[in-house]
Formats: sequence, C-alpha cells, structure tokens
Amino acid sequence: MAEQKAKTALVVSAHSADFVWRAGGAIALYARRGYRVLIVCLSYGERGESAKLWKQPGMTMEAVKKARHAEAEQAAAILGGETMFLDAGDYPLRATPELLTLLAGIYQDLQPEFVLSHSLEDPYNFDHPLATHLAQEARIVAQAHGFRGADKIIGAPPVFLFEPHQTEQCNWKPQVLLDITEVWDIKRQAFESMGAQEHLWEYYTRVGLQRGVQAKRNSNRTATKYAEGYQRVFPHVTDHLS
Amino acid sequence: MAEQKAKTALVVSAHSADFVWRAGGAIALYARRGYRVLIVCLSYGERGESAKLWKQPGMTMEAVKKARHAEAEQAAAILGGETMFLDAGDYPLRATPELLTLLAGIYQDLQPEFVLSHSLEDPYNFDHPLATHLAQEARIVAQAHGFRGADKIIGAPPVFLFEPHQTEQCNWKPQVLLDITEVWDIKRQAFESMGAQEHLWEYYTRVGLQRGVQAKRNSNRTATKYAEGYQRVFPHVTDHLS
Amino acid sequence: MAEQKAKTALVVSAHSADFVWRAGGAIALYARRGYRVLIVCLSYGERGESAKLWKQPGMTMEAVKKARHAEAEQAAAILGGETMFLDAGDYPLRATPELLTLLAGIYQDLQPEFVLSHSLEDPYNFDHPLATHLAQEARIVAQAHGFRGADKIIGAPPVFLFEPHQTEQCNWKPQVLLDITEVWDIKRQAFESMGAQEHLWEYYTRVGLQRGVQAKRNSNRTATKYAEGYQRVFPHVTDHLS
Amino acid sequence: MAEQKAKTALVVSAHSADFVWRAGGAIALYARRGYRVLIVCLSYGERGESAKLWKQPGMTMEAVKKARHAEAEQAAAILGGETMFLDAGDYPLRATPELLTLLAGIYQDLQPEFVLSHSLEDPYNFDHPLATHLAQEARIVAQAHGFRGADKIIGAPPVFLFEPHQTEQCNWKPQVLLDITEVWDIKRQAFESMGAQEHLWEYYTRVGLQRGVQAKRNSNRTATKYAEGYQRVFPHVTDHLS
Amino acid sequence: MAEQKAKTALVVSAHSADFVWRAGGAIALYARRGYRVLIVCLSYGERGESAKLWKQPGMTMEAVKKARHAEAEQAAAILGGETMFLDAGDYPLRATPELLTLLAGIYQDLQPEFVLSHSLEDPYNFDHPLATHLAQEARIVAQAHGFRGADKIIGAPPVFLFEPHQTEQCNWKPQVLLDITEVWDIKRQAFESMGAQEHLWEYYTRVGLQRGVQAKRNSNRTATKYAEGYQRVFPHVTDHLS
Amino acid sequence: MAEQKAKTALVVSAHSADFVWRAGGAIALYARRGYRVLIVCLSYGERGESAKLWKQPGMTMEAVKKARHAEAEQAAAILGGETMFLDAGDYPLRATPELLTLLAGIYQDLQPEFVLSHSLEDPYNFDHPLATHLAQEARIVAQAHGFRGADKIIGAPPVFLFEPHQTEQCNWKPQVLLDITEVWDIKRQAFESMGAQEHLWEYYTRVGLQRGVQAKRNSNRTATKYAEGYQRVFPHVTDHLS
Repeated sequence: MAEQKAKTALVVSAHSADFVWRAGGAIALYARRGYRVLIVCLSYGERGESAKLWKQPGMTMEAVKKARHAEAEQAAAILGGETMFLDAGDYPLRATPELLTLLAGIYQDLQPEFVLSHSLEDPYNFDHPLATHLAQEARIVAQAHGFRGADKIIGAPPVFLFEPHQTEQCNWKPQVLLDITEVWDIKRQAFESMGAQEHLWEYYTRVGLQRGVQAKRNSNRTATKYAEGYQRVFPHVTDHLS
Repeated sequence: MAEQKAKTALVVSAHSADFVWRAGGAIALYARRGYRVLIVCLSYGERGESAKLWKQPGMTMEAVKKARHAEAEQAAAILGGETMFLDAGDYPLRATPELLTLLAGIYQDLQPEFVLSHSLEDPYNFDHPLATHLAQEARIVAQAHGFRGADKIIGAPPVFLFEPHQTEQCNWKPQVLLDITEVWDIKRQAFESMGAQEHLWEYYTRVGLQRGVQAKRNSNRTATKYAEGYQRVFPHVTDHLS
Repeated sequence: MAEQKAKTALVVSAHSADFVWRAGGAIALYARRGYRVLIVCLSYGERGESAKLWKQPGMTMEAVKKARHAEAEQAAAILGGETMFLDAGDYPLRATPELLTLLAGIYQDLQPEFVLSHSLEDPYNFDHPLATHLAQEARIVAQAHGFRGADKIIGAPPVFLFEPHQTEQCNWKPQVLLDITEVWDIKRQAFESMGAQEHLWEYYTRVGLQRGVQAKRNSNRTATKYAEGYQRVFPHVTDHLS
Repeated sequence: MAEQKAKTALVVSAHSADFVWRAGGAIALYARRGYRVLIVCLSYGERGESAKLWKQPGMTMEAVKKARHAEAEQAAAILGGETMFLDAGDYPLRATPELLTLLAGIYQDLQPEFVLSHSLEDPYNFDHPLATHLAQEARIVAQAHGFRGADKIIGAPPVFLFEPHQTEQCNWKPQVLLDITEVWDIKRQAFESMGAQEHLWEYYTRVGLQRGVQAKRNSNRTATKYAEGYQRVFPHVTDHLS
Repeated sequence: MAEQKAKTALVVSAHSADFVWRAGGAIALYARRGYRVLIVCLSYGERGESAKLWKQPGMTMEAVKKARHAEAEQAAAILGGETMFLDAGDYPLRATPELLTLLAGIYQDLQPEFVLSHSLEDPYNFDHPLATHLAQEARIVAQAHGFRGADKIIGAPPVFLFEPHQTEQCNWKPQVLLDITEVWDIKRQAFESMGAQEHLWEYYTRVGLQRGVQAKRNSNRTATKYAEGYQRVFPHVTDHLS
Repeated sequence: MAEQKAKTALVVSAHSADFVWRAGGAIALYARRGYRVLIVCLSYGERGESAKLWKQPGMTMEAVKKARHAEAEQAAAILGGETMFLDAGDYPLRATPELLTLLAGIYQDLQPEFVLSHSLEDPYNFDHPLATHLAQEARIVAQAHGFRGADKIIGAPPVFLFEPHQTEQCNWKPQVLLDITEVWDIKRQAFESMGAQEHLWEYYTRVGLQRGVQAKRNSNRTATKYAEGYQRVFPHVTDHLS
C-alpha cells in the first residue's frame, strides 16, 4: 500500500547513460526521500556513445546493447532509481506513434511529481532534443481527458531540462541550481559504473564543482559544494519568493 | 528586539504607485508573514502618472507630489509595507552617484531576503528599467567588502522583476507565478487608494485573474484564483524540484 | 458571379474551437466586409479540449466529435465564416503528406488575401505550432509553379499568428493590435456556443479587454474597447507608415 | 492656416547624413503628400563621417561642420524636409538633460504622426542607438501631463527604426517594407548632394534595390522596384490585416 | 593516388541551384586550392524554383528535372565542383531514413574538411532548414562508432550556413565574411548558366558587392570587393585571434 | 626599431585581476609570439574583488589598491604583458569623457591587431559590461578622422569578449575556442600571484580544462588540453573556412 502511495518522478533519457551524468544527483536525492524514480532510457546509446566498446574486436550490436544495459542498470541501482529500456534507436533516435502512446501511458500510470529530460536544442546530438520533444508531447497527451479517460489524466508536473555537454551552444540556461552535495558520493559512484565512458568521469565531476560554486554565489548556502543545473519549461507556481 | 530580527524584503519602485499594481500581493503576503517590507519609491510619478491631477485647474508640482505621496503611503499601509520616498525625478528619473550610494546603504542596513523591481526593458517607460538597473547595481555595491567594510556586506538576495504593463513588448517572461489568492482583497483595497489612476483598477484586477488561471494550469493548486508574475534575474538555488 | 469575386481569407485552426477565442473578431470583421472566410479545423479537439464532454457517462469518441463539430459550426455561423473539418487527429495532431497536398490545394482554390494561424511555439500544446507549420508549408507549396501549374499559384498572402493562451511562454509578441470593438458582441456570442469550454468565456473576454486598453495606448483610437493581438510572419509591405 | 494644419513627421538623425541614406524615401514620400517633415540632426557627423573632408589640408572642425551642414540642407531640400541642427557632439554624441528637454518640446510643438530614428543596437556606431534612445525618451517625456501641461501632451506616434549599415550585426529586422519606387529618383538625387560620402551612393542604391525585390516577394505589388526597411518599436494598431 | 589524398569539402544544397548563388565563391576558391568539393543536391528545385520552365507550354516534370540537372551540372563544372543528385522531392523536400543513411555514408567516404548548408530557419522556404537539419544529423550519425565501424567515423568538420534570400527574417547572422574577390568572375559565370532564374543574377551580384563592402569595413583587407557571408554552427577552434 | 614595429594587442580589464583568469592564455600566447600586449586595468578591483584584503585589520583603500597593483603587475610580468592602471573607480566603475578620450588615444598610439574585453552583459557585475562598452566606444572614436587627424586613425581590429564567471546568465556564447595548451603552465603560474583571490585558482583551472575538452570535440586537435573561450563582436573576415 505504502509503496503505491510513494511519490514518483520521471526521467526521460535519450541514451542509457545520460541520466547518470546529468541528473544523477536529483535521482539520488529524491530516491533518498522515498520517491520512486523511473528512468526511461529511449535507447542504449549503442551507436553514438559506445566508442570504447566498438573498438573491441568482433563487437556486435547485440553485445554493445547488453553491455550498456548492464552499466545503466548498475548506475540506476546505485542512485536508487528504476530503469525501463525502450530500444527506440540511436543516432538516430526516432519517435514512432506507438512510442508516444506508450510514454503517455507511463505518465498516467506513474503520475509523476516532476519530469527531467534534455535541453531543447543540441547541435552536437539531435537525439537529445528529440527525447525532450517526445517527453513533452507525451505529457500533453497524458493530460487529455480523451486519451484513456478522465480518471487517468495527469495534472501539470513541472519539467526540468538537465545540463547538456556544451551549454552555451545549446542555448540552455540554468534557472535552478539543485544542491546535491549530500548525495555527491553516490553520483560519483554511479559514474564509475559507466565503464564505456570513463573519459567523462572527471569532466562531469568538474561540472558538479562549478555548479556548486555558482550555487553558493547565488544564495546563502555556504555548505554547498556540488550542484546540478536545470532549465525550467514552465513557470514556477509557488507562494514563496526564494 | 524581536522586531529587529524580523526578516526583511526590499521593493524598488520607479514611481509612487508601481508597487501597488505590480507587487501589492507579494508585499501583503510577506507583511502578513511578519516581514518588514521596505518600499523605496524613487519618484512620485509626478509628471508621467498623474494625469488626473494635472487636469485640475491651478495644479502645482508640489501639490501633485503631496497628493501622490499621500496615496502611496495609504496604499502601503493597507498592504503592510513601509515607504521611503527619494524624489529622484520623474520622466525622466535619473540615477546620481549619491542615489546609488544611498540605495546601497539601504541594502546593507536592511539585509533583505529578496528584492522586487521592474522589468529589464520597457519601451513605454524608460524610468522602469532605469530603476531596476539602479536596484541591481546598488545590490552589487552592497556586496563589496570595500564599500562600508566587511561586516556590513549583504549576501545574494534573489531579485524578482514584476510585471510591466505590456509584457511582450518588454520581453518580460514570468518564471514565477506567486499565488496571492489569500491576500487579494487587501491588494484590491490598496488599488482603491490610488485615486489618480482609477482607470487602472479594473485593468490590474484582470491581470490578477489571468495570472491566477495560469497558475492553476501550471500546477495542482486548484484553489488559486489570483496570482502575480515575476521574472527571476538569477538562478533559483534550492534542494527541491517543484 | 459577384460571389465568386468576393475576397477571401483563410483560418487554419488546430482544434475546432481555437478560431473562436483567438480570431473570432477578425473573422467577424472581415465577414461583415464581405469576405468569404474559410476556417479549416484540422481536428475537433476531441481529446485535449473536450474535458467537459468526457466527464459525461458513456461518452464515445464519435459523440464527442459530433458535439464539437456542432458547436464549431454554430460559432462559425455566428461569426459569418465557413468551416471545413479535416479530422487529422488530436493530441497528437499529425500532418500527413496528403494533408499538406489537400491544404495547398485549398490555398490555390481560395486565393486568400491573408492567413491566420497559431503561434510558432507553445509548450502547452504541440498541436498548435504543428498546425502553423502545416499552414505555412502548404502556403509555400501553393506558391510553386510545379505544384498544379503556373496559372493556379498563389501570391504572397501575409500570415498572422493569433494569441496563444500563455503568450510569454510561447515567445509570441503582438505586432498588430486589431481593433474589434465594432464586432465584439458577435465574438462574445460565438463564445457562448462553445458549451464544452464555458470556463474560457470570461478568460477570453478579459483578453479582449486588455488588448483593447493596449490598442488605445499605442494609438489615437480613443473609441477602441476590444482588440485581438497578432504576430506577423513576414514584413508588412506598404506605402504608409502608420 | 492650412499650413498650420499640415500633418507632420519627425526624423531624429544622429549625424547630418543618416537621414538621406536611411529614410530619404519616406521623407520624400510624405513631403509629396503634404506633410511637414522635420529632420533633427543631433550632430554634423563632423568627426566620424567626414573622412573625405579631413583629408583636405588645413581642414578645421568649423569648416567640416559648415560643409556638412550645407550638404544636409541641400539633401533635405531635395527631399522636401526641414532641418534643425543641434550640434550635440559626434563620436561621441552625448545626451544632456537640456537636449532631452529640448527634443521633448519639439515633439509637443510638432505633434508628429510618426517618428523615424536609428536601430536599437549598432556595434559599429554607438551614436546611432544613443540617438534612438534619446528620441524615444523625449517622446515619453512629451506624453507626460506634468511636463508642460495637459494641453500640450502628444499621443502615441509610432516609431520606425531605419536600416543600419550592417543589419544582422545590429539585430535589426525589417517589419515594414515601405515602397518608395515613386520617389526613388528624388532619393538618389539627394544622395548626390552628399559629396563627403560619395562611396555610399552605390551602396545605398543597392540597398534600395534589394529591399525592392523583397517587397515584391512579400506582397502582390508587382510594380515595386525600390523600398526602405523599417523595424517597428510598438505594435501596429489598425482595423485591417494587410 | 594523389587524387585520393586531396582534401575535400561537402555542400548540401536543397535545390539544384542554391549552391550557385549562396556558396559559389567558396566552391570556386577551394576547387582552385585543389580540394574535391562534392555538391549534394537533394532535389532539382523542380517545383518551387523553376517558374520560367513551367511557363513553357507542354512542360513536364521530367523535362524540368532534366533541364535543372543540366544547368546545375554546368554551373558546378564552372565552379570546379562535383555534383550528386538525390531527387528527394521539392516543395516539399522530405528526409527519409534511407536518405539520412545515404548521406551519413557520403560523409564517411568523403571525410570533408568542412560542410556548407542552408540557414537554420527560413519562413519563405521550408526545404532549406530541412536540408540543413538533414546535413547536420547525417554528420552526427557519421561520427558514431556504431554506424559502420570505428575506422570509418569522421571527426568534427565545421559547418557553415550560407546566406538565405532574406537574412533578417531567417534570423541568420554572418559570423564569417569570406573574401571571394579572386574567384568572383567564376561565380558570376556560373550564375549565367542558371537560365531558369535569370532574375537572380543581378540580385546575387549585389549581395556579393554588399558583403564585400562589409568585409572591407570589418578588416584591413583593402582589396576585397566581393564576399560571401556564413554563419557558424560550432565554435571556431584555433590558436589565432584574427 | 624592431621593437617599434612589433605587432600589438589591447586588453581592457575592468578590475586588476580579470585579465589573468579570463585572458591569461591569450596574453601569454601572443607575448611569446613577440606581440606587445597592453593590459589596461580600469580599476584595481579595490572594493569588489578584494575581500581577503579587507578582512585584515586596519586595512585602508590605499593599501588595498597598492596590494592589488602589485599582484596584477606580477601576473602581467609572468604572462609577458604590460600594464596600465587608470584607477577609474570600482563598484561602481564610471566612464568619464576624459577616460573615453584617453582610451581612444591609447588605441591610436598602440594600433592593436585585436582587442580583448568583457562580456556584453553580466548581472553579477555591472563594471564588466561598462568596461566593454567603453572599450568599444573608444575603438569607434579612434576610427574617426576628426578625432586626432586622418593619419592617426585605426583600422577595424576585431574585438573578442572573454568568458564571464557564469556564462549562461550573461548570454555569452563562445564562438572561438583558443587553444592555450602550450602556455597553460604560464597562465597557472600567473593565477598564483593573485593572493587576494586564491579561491579562484581551482575554479579557473577547471574552466580551462572544460574548454579544452570542448575544443578537442569541436576539431581535430587531439593534443589540446586547455582552452579559453571568446565571443566575437564582429564577423570574422577571412579567406579560409576552418
């Protein structure tokens, strides 16, 4: 019963590893708070983000997917999230009508408090904005009374866009700096299960530190050391100015 | 003693009435929560926003200022805020070095939790962005150890920009919708002390209603009826995604 | 004969009711001036904008469409426009090649003086920008000599984008404020045939009033009370600066 | 009497020649329609745009100003406009309080139907945006009842920003393409009185031709050959969609 | 052998003539420097840009394509580039999965030093941004180790976007002004093989002259007379500031 | 003699340390290439960026300035640049007419090949955009024949804007990634002479590493490890696409 009543969050990740580098702190933070965090990996990143695997002799698509699946599962387990793999293609990812319907159904079943996905633009990676577009359109479909009936509709969960690799080129701007200091060790541990992308461990550790310094500068949180940046899609509805 | 420890907020208003239409809800809300809310009126709006008074025969500048002062004081009292009038000129407002220093000192003395001011652009009213520029630069000066000494510096209070008259022309975008339903009656009452601008009462009541509908649409706050929109200048530092 | 020579206008509406709230004034104004105004409803809004209907027990898709169709026909009749329903899907609307060809043919047959459609972006409703994209691409196809032959091509009718629900979030900016005071009563009457969305009657009445105030402020039209806002896609070619 | 009642227009030009290249067509068009067109030249362009003169041996500031004055007068006469020279400095132009007051008074005395000035940004020439800022602020001051009294205020004349030398770098976008075909010969003739900037004659003839082609492409005006581009500051209030 | 080692460049052109007007100078310049420049024409522009042909009695689609093919081949030969025609549809162009795969393969086989394509937006021509989107996505796919194996991947060739017809409406901004003075005669000669679009010869000659003047103004290249503008997609990586 | 003929570059730094963090690599690179690099420090950063010094008991303004002067001189010497201190005020910096004239004269005397300064916007530090505005306006004045005579004018040196502390909030976008790997050790050594801002050493080392990774990703420069980002003000005029 209690389980059914746990609050939930949804992460829509284009490739199997994106959620680790970009939203691992948020996932760990909310998992620790008792949220069920569902991470939907639209693809395994089997083509575009598995360079290290493809350099091994005799590598096959199946083996790459399997390896990436295992890594992502392990990372999610460390962070405290659940995974779901939709295998919808990588470089290019493509959004079929069925995928949209499936994801809209996930929204209605999960009833998430908030949603995390990619930046709206990314000239380095067209799968990222496509994933966000799909995540947003599925959210809209799931709000419709006529989709699966009036009693299943979702409300208006806020959508947060996590940090792309080269922020300025993506016209991405952090409107929220989420303090993840207390779960940093977990996020870093999750990094280390991504064997296929070891070169990114230090890169994203530095990202965490830079956002941490900025979080401190934009607030009175003197103990903050690590942060994640998010852009909002919708206005923040609140009764506090902080 | 307790009084000295009350949390504070600062409103920088170009003309004597701006704070009523644009931030009256926030002021009333925080006053009710025990905040000391200081409203700095840079001018009386004695030239640009006192048409009704100037149509009276024999009107003088002094009389207009006095009338506007009285109206603003009354509105502030209704909302629960304090006023300070700096009489720095209207149409055009001008920011002298002394005004900057004075306002930076106010920041340091007040140590506000947050700051409210105008939009960054306004092709209809150049005093508005100038007021914001002044409010922002004074905040920066007040953060400097070398201004009045290290023990007086302020931290990094967030700055919220209230809604201009014609939002799209000002490139203003509401990132926060503040639910002011519980203090709406007070805000409306404050409107009614602005005798010189009676034509705006209904206009800003409609603004409150429209923002209220939007707040409801962007959240699960079903009881919301009135809201105020604010644009943020800095990222929101937090440990919650909501 | 005279009828054949009537000037025409084209409205491309994603859902059956959009044209009422957003362009009802323009339609009524031009109908009164003798224009044939064709309103193409790409869908009935049967999923996303029929909440009230879906709450009725035993409701079916067919019945919803029928009810929405009837409402839209009635509203169009009040405004003085003609309707055409393409039933291309709602939440999500999808633009097939056939739909594009069909709409391009409509352009060539109608030879409209101007075109009205939705904003270019809308994070709340992905059908809206899709409808505009389709309306624009069909216009371009209809300009091509090779589509149905040189004698059928259209010229370059200006495209006006009507006001979305939350303008700033859609990066929509009104470049034209159309004075609809003389047809306001008709527009309001059309609202009232939209029984499925009664909650929007007052919302869009307030929109009309706010734009009316702004129209007055941006001109010398002292009698203006209601207006509709439009964003232009193309520059205004003219021999007058007004 | 009749003369007093002529409609008027105001051009605010940073340097003595800007109005010729950028707005000569509009001036000639409205002069021909019986408007009194007042061209306020804030400076003579005596430093920045008089290279040819300064290359003459023994040239003095006074002589440059005189030569530029004469050229501008001649060009204005050809176009049919009146000039006023304010000699407010060039490279850099500076806006004193007195200049603002003076210009606001000109607005009130002239009561222009529309106003022409420079683009909002120009990284090649800081005097241009400053001139526009001054023109806009003076317009706002002239709207204030408290400036010189309620009976002298102006309404809300639209402001059009003429084309800068390198449009994209100035983030300037033509929202109006004014057909100046019928007065092109006059504009070209005015060019030829600007002996100090002969290298620009062909450049701005090509600008006129390119805008002419674009005007034709954006409309059904098949006879258009020359046009001038303008960006609007305020929405166009109208009862026609064209 | 030497041939195999020639450096290469890739031009992705929506219609058969775009590359001539927009990138003819760059093609001629690099052809002269010994580069193999491959021009991929996604369509013949058989519908949208062949008005002159369609006005001939009895014209057929096949004949239009043939004529356009011949013109483009001739222009490319003059410029020194190679052509490839993909016949993917015109007004509308459509990007199938097969087209994406084909183009990604071309990238890998060609290993271009740089890529030229259209602007990111164009309200006058939806095929243009689609071509660029395809060119960019194919480039990304070609960078993936999993596409055709690790030894075939491409690096990160810069992408330059050539000048659209109405730059400001396309939000296109020239970040590079390429001096094409030394090959101008060749570019102009190529224009003249485009018999179907004779009206554009003078238009694009004027474009070349205007960009030439601007190039001179932004540098110390006093001999520059003609230039082409390009917008960059990615930052310029270099060890020189020039 | 030879010395007089050395090429030159100009850095306009709002506070005494900005040039070290933001442009130290460029300075070292060009100094090594034999350029005379002049660093104009408009202020000492005596109020806003000297927190560590102000925490020492009995500190005076004079002593802070002296300490900052010494640090900046030492850092410049390490990098190979020359310094000039204009003591124009800090928090707030102010640009007097005399300062503009002085700086324009420096441009004419130095005849720099390129100019480095701050971002165009910075909500955290208003001195930064003011410094850039001054640097740009002085450059424009120095181009004027009428300023100090035709033989002293400068050409059109490109202006590069270095990276602000929080890039996205400043709407700053790196268009150039300058490879500074070969001079990194020198830049780092210069950091270490800035005793008053020790907390920034690691922050800006991480910035150098992140930009280095991005430079590698955007090119084929596999040996790049550190880079500096710059935004261009003007288009790059060149005869190469790279």
